[in-house]
Amino acid sequence: LDKITGDVASAAEPRFLVKLALNAWEVQTKRADAAFGRVSDEQFFEPIAPGKNRVIYLFGHLIAVDDAIFPLFDLGERLYPPFAEIFVTQPDRQAADLPSLEELKRAWTDVHSKLTHRFHEMKVEQWLERHTAISAEDFLKDPSRNRLSVLLSRTSHVAYHLGQLALVKK
Amino acid sequence: LDKITGDVASAAEPRFLVKLALNAWEVQTKRADAAFGRVSDEQFFEPIAPGKNRVIYLFGHLIAVDDAIFPLFDLGERLYPPFAEIFVTQPDRQAADLPSLEELKRAWTDVHSKLTHRFHEMKVEQWLERHTAISAEDFLKDPSRNRLSVLLSRTSHVAYHLGQLALVKK
Repeated sequence: LDKITGDVASAAEPRFLVKLALNAWEVQTKRADAAFGRVSDEQFFEPIAPGKNRVIYLFGHLIAVDDAIFPLFDLGERLYPPFAEIFVTQPDRQAADLPSLEELKRAWTDVHSKLTHRFHEMKVEQWLERHTAISAEDFLKDPSRNRLSVLLSRTSHVAYHLGQLALVKK
Repeated sequence: LDKITGDVASAAEPRFLVKLALNAWEVQTKRADAAFGRVSDEQFFEPIAPGKNRVIYLFGHLIAVDDAIFPLFDLGERLYPPFAEIFVTQPDRQAADLPSLEELKRAWTDVHSKLTHRFHEMKVEQWLERHTAISAEDFLKDPSRNRLSVLLSRTSHVAYHLGQLALVKK
């Protein structure tokens, strides 16, 4: 976060408020990064609880959902299009072949570092533009359906699965 | 959320950005409210996964952590001071006596409805003031340690445990 010296006028700037939301996103993704980093290769193939999704599915799921932010923000195509089918559309244990752990770990870092980089380039006005899943007409009726809301929602989504990951012994 | 008619100038107002964060908080707390509402009385005493915290502990934990926002935002005392010891300081199954489910359900609604009410009264400047757990001196060095950051962090905290609650069969 930029150093801003307690000046209320500058603190109340929209840019600063966007930074707080970005900071919350980075806190959760860094926590997830650290938590997945502590998981052993064997544990990636264990369920988070008996009969539940495996850690590898959770990992791929977060990569795929966050990767979808690129098209949703009109920042380009997904980096890993096949992951959407394997880790979002299909439930765990359905896909005949999963990407390797190595590939997933590379993809995790790739998606999140590129997203964070793009996020930091975005101006306040861009955060307040509609995301591509809402029509211009509907957005006029509800301008809260913007990119910043998606960021807040994705932040909670990472936290949600992080809570599940915490159940796995490390 | 207030209806604001797609006007970029007003959308970029700090007040609107605070509303987006408040909206994210309400989405998560309403989801938690609905999810706990689907839990049977018996299930409240079951663990979220073998050997893990029971649902009732999660429930009390969220009440206690969110109740602590009142003093943290200088909005008054906690409504349920004893819950902090039972559901935060102590791990699950340590307390000799737990509050009844009825009492907890009343406290959940009480804490969250009063918090939401107070949140809606707060002005942007108040959201950007320091929380009471940081000194004025440290806040000068890092003005991001304000109430809005706490709100974003508590939103993720609710989502975190919501992910765990989702593992319980309903």
